[in-house]
Amino acid sequence: MVQLNDLPRNETGIETAISILKQQFGPRVDTSPSLRDQHAHTTTWLRAQPPDAVVFPQSTAEVQEIVRICATHEVPIIPFGIGSSLEGHVNAPAGGISVDFGQMNRVLEVNTEDFDCRVEPGVTRKQLNEELRATGLFFPVDPGADATLGGMAATRASGTNAVRYGTMKDVVLGLKAVLPNGEILKTAQRARKTSAGYDLTRLMIGSEGTLGLITELTLKLNGIPEAMSAANCSFNTVEDACNAVIMTIQSGIPVARIELLSTLQVQAVNQYSGTGLPETPLLLLEFHGSAASVQEQASQFGEIAEELNAQKFTWTTKNEDRIKLWQARHDSYWATLRLRPDAEGISTDVCVPISRLAECVTTAEDKAREFDLIAPVIGHAGDGNFHMLLLIKGEAERARAGEFISWLNKMAISMDGTCTGEHGLGQGKGQYLPLELGQPAIDTMKAIKAAIDPKNIFNPGKLFQI
Amino acid sequence: MVQLNDLPRNETGIETAISILKQQFGPRVDTSPSLRDQHAHTTTWLRAQPPDAVVFPQSTAEVQEIVRICATHEVPIIPFGIGSSLEGHVNAPAGGISVDFGQMNRVLEVNTEDFDCRVEPGVTRKQLNEELRATGLFFPVDPGADATLGGMAATRASGTNAVRYGTMKDVVLGLKAVLPNGEILKTAQRARKTSAGYDLTRLMIGSEGTLGLITELTLKLNGIPEAMSAANCSFNTVEDACNAVIMTIQSGIPVARIELLSTLQVQAVNQYSGTGLPETPLLLLEFHGSAASVQEQASQFGEIAEELNAQKFTWTTKNEDRIKLWQARHDSYWATLRLRPDAEGISTDVCVPISRLAECVTTAEDKAREFDLIAPVIGHAGDGNFHMLLLIKGEAERARAGEFISWLNKMAISMDGTCTGEHGLGQGKGQYLPLELGQPAIDTMKAIKAAIDPKNIFNPGKLFQI
Repeated sequence: MVQLNDLPRNETGIETAISILKQQFGPRVDTSPSLRDQHAHTTTWLRAQPPDAVVFPQSTAEVQEIVRICATHEVPIIPFGIGSSLEGHVNAPAGGISVDFGQMNRVLEVNTEDFDCRVEPGVTRKQLNEELRATGLFFPVDPGADATLGGMAATRASGTNAVRYGTMKDVVLGLKAVLPNGEILKTAQRARKTSAGYDLTRLMIGSEGTLGLITELTLKLNGIPEAMSAANCSFNTVEDACNAVIMTIQSGIPVARIELLSTLQVQAVNQYSGTGLPETPLLLLEFHGSAASVQEQASQFGEIAEELNAQKFTWTTKNEDRIKLWQARHDSYWATLRLRPDAEGISTDVCVPISRLAECVTTAEDKAREFDLIAPVIGHAGDGNFHMLLLIKGEAERARAGEFISWLNKMAISMDGTCTGEHGLGQGKGQYLPLELGQPAIDTMKAIKAAIDPKNIFNPGKLFQI
Repeated sequence: MVQLNDLPRNETGIETAISILKQQFGPRVDTSPSLRDQHAHTTTWLRAQPPDAVVFPQSTAEVQEIVRICATHEVPIIPFGIGSSLEGHVNAPAGGISVDFGQMNRVLEVNTEDFDCRVEPGVTRKQLNEELRATGLFFPVDPGADATLGGMAATRASGTNAVRYGTMKDVVLGLKAVLPNGEILKTAQRARKTSAGYDLTRLMIGSEGTLGLITELTLKLNGIPEAMSAANCSFNTVEDACNAVIMTIQSGIPVARIELLSTLQVQAVNQYSGTGLPETPLLLLEFHGSAASVQEQASQFGEIAEELNAQKFTWTTKNEDRIKLWQARHDSYWATLRLRPDAEGISTDVCVPISRLAECVTTAEDKAREFDLIAPVIGHAGDGNFHMLLLIKGEAERARAGEFISWLNKMAISMDGTCTGEHGLGQGKGQYLPLELGQPAIDTMKAIKAAIDPKNIFNPGKLFQI
């Protein structure tokens, strides 16, 4: 289990910076314990390390001002979206200032002809899709939580639609970020592709606030498909379900979502959402396209399901049924917590080449039983990415959970996979990076960090340190 | 017009390095003037600056050896694929060693279940597709030239299929590269997505050999579509053709290719390939999918063409007709050169948001006429990316061409576009970067370069200097 150490604090600097920030931002600087606690809390199993103050900028210029004040006094800055990250990204191990982007939440521009838009980082994905409603366009990346787009970019988020529409790395055309020196970095213009120099857009995406504070994003949008249909399909075993996923991807069926739920996860969903699904491994699917293409996709998948002796394949083009099914999927986090009331939920994710998915999931389920841990599986199976949400009580289970997570991450890496498909490294996963990529990759990342943030004031203690 | 200056040479270092390399690599180090000239020559309008020697490594370990020798003696290294880049990427303005990856051309592994493969950098795209033939898979990125995959990754190449299948940034899952310190950087494992730290894969892609020498690539593959059909459609004006592209993309037709040819370009193709196409602005299209979907796509496009008063829309599912049409497209470079025998061809590319494409192309055609330049347009219109190939003779036209290119790049940038959609900066386009992205982006790129290659031995004089 990760032991979270506090890092050395620059007390004088922090005190001075807060007093200057208060002069400049008045009531938009908050040092109340409850707000500070809330800004350290994420849906994580890591202990909270609250910042010393929270500040709410309203413009890029104000973010520059905050950065300049903190840089002058060598005070850490921790960017904050909505706090839905899972690996301690918003903790403040050396104290410092949490920059909450909640008041920078305007959709600045929608270019319907170019299928793109420009937003401030505090816009959430649901808010964006609400504002896009009249345009016939939508923003596809959906990590489940109603996260901010700035936070999603910073952690390279993905989720259920990634198998069809890509991850944040694929949908961000460009961004603006305030650098540790206070300058505004613009990474790209609005063209669909570019070969003009280093890919600073992708460098910022997934950098978890350690290189720049994102203050604006230009995002690709998609046309709302003419038709959408949802399906669910129950299998006898997790292997069969995973093999159905592999065959679906290999057949080139352009499935929009293909999610795996283990038996235990289906039980949790049934209990919480009253879905009445057969309590065996399940795939939830969604097809997007023209009416004809959606029908064709569902029928192609049906053949695969039959070949793998699926117990039941149900599909629907009714919008309300589709929404109900996916609402149940999105509520699965809460559903799982309800499986064992008063337990703490520890979520982790790994991602492996799809050919290894069945083996990885079944081995992980066996191992969890061996460790006597309650650990339902839910996954973005089309990408080879899955989550386990361990439900624990007390220190003994917590320790076993820690051992299990360590084992799981190493197993995924041994299968040519990664210790995180979409959660990011934060404070919890940096320890696996040497095994996954080796020292030259870490040295290269550290060299970049030192070149861009020589004073290490942007989100210190993340990525590289545990 | 770019004036190419030679950079200071480290004569002693170069001499020493060559003599050590000769001891280690024997006849695989070549200093003959003709081979050196050939390694400076690219299909470019920039004057040649030959390296002092060419070395042909056969393994990653040999590349490390070369890098260590050159680093010790502070000698420039210029990576070389097949020499089809267009902006002087393989020139050696400070002299040094050209590293030719032609003998590292093995397909190392094909994972048919995961739709990916691992290749050495000297494998060309055609070679890869030949070797994949039996698997039912193909590699989609097609820049026209039979470039090496290492070179394509280094310049972030794209081409005709990018509108559907993405660019090199989208299809490289991970890579290995030898760093200036001689270490082997591994950027990612084989999972379809990852959030594990900075995106070093994307940092290396498009870095034009200035940060690392790519020695291995893991590439995403696609299933060969069940059906493919090609179409050509002639329009009265370039505006109509561009508007057809915009409407196609906006309708969500998942077109695999949609290429624009100006009237002059069609004339060139007709003369060279005997295609007998109407000599007006033309779109060439390709549709991939199931038999039904291909038919549906063609019919949807047909409606758009009709709405825009297209003169003629022809489509075919016959493989030989399809191949003939695309062969003519791929030969367009040679076809254009034939328009004006003995002229020099100067190719440039820009990329704009698709809503600005019609305006950008028509304004560019008008301006070329004003400059009295022969300048056919061919473009990956679905991405808003197009090329002009200026056919010039003599110094006066060369000077006008230089002015025109400068004007064109600046106009694209003023339309929120980029000075290069797919050619890269090399020696020719770095001058536009301040206008396109501003100083903080350039400073950030330079900081990264200095952090990874402090002695500036990897492809010096590219990207940042003109």
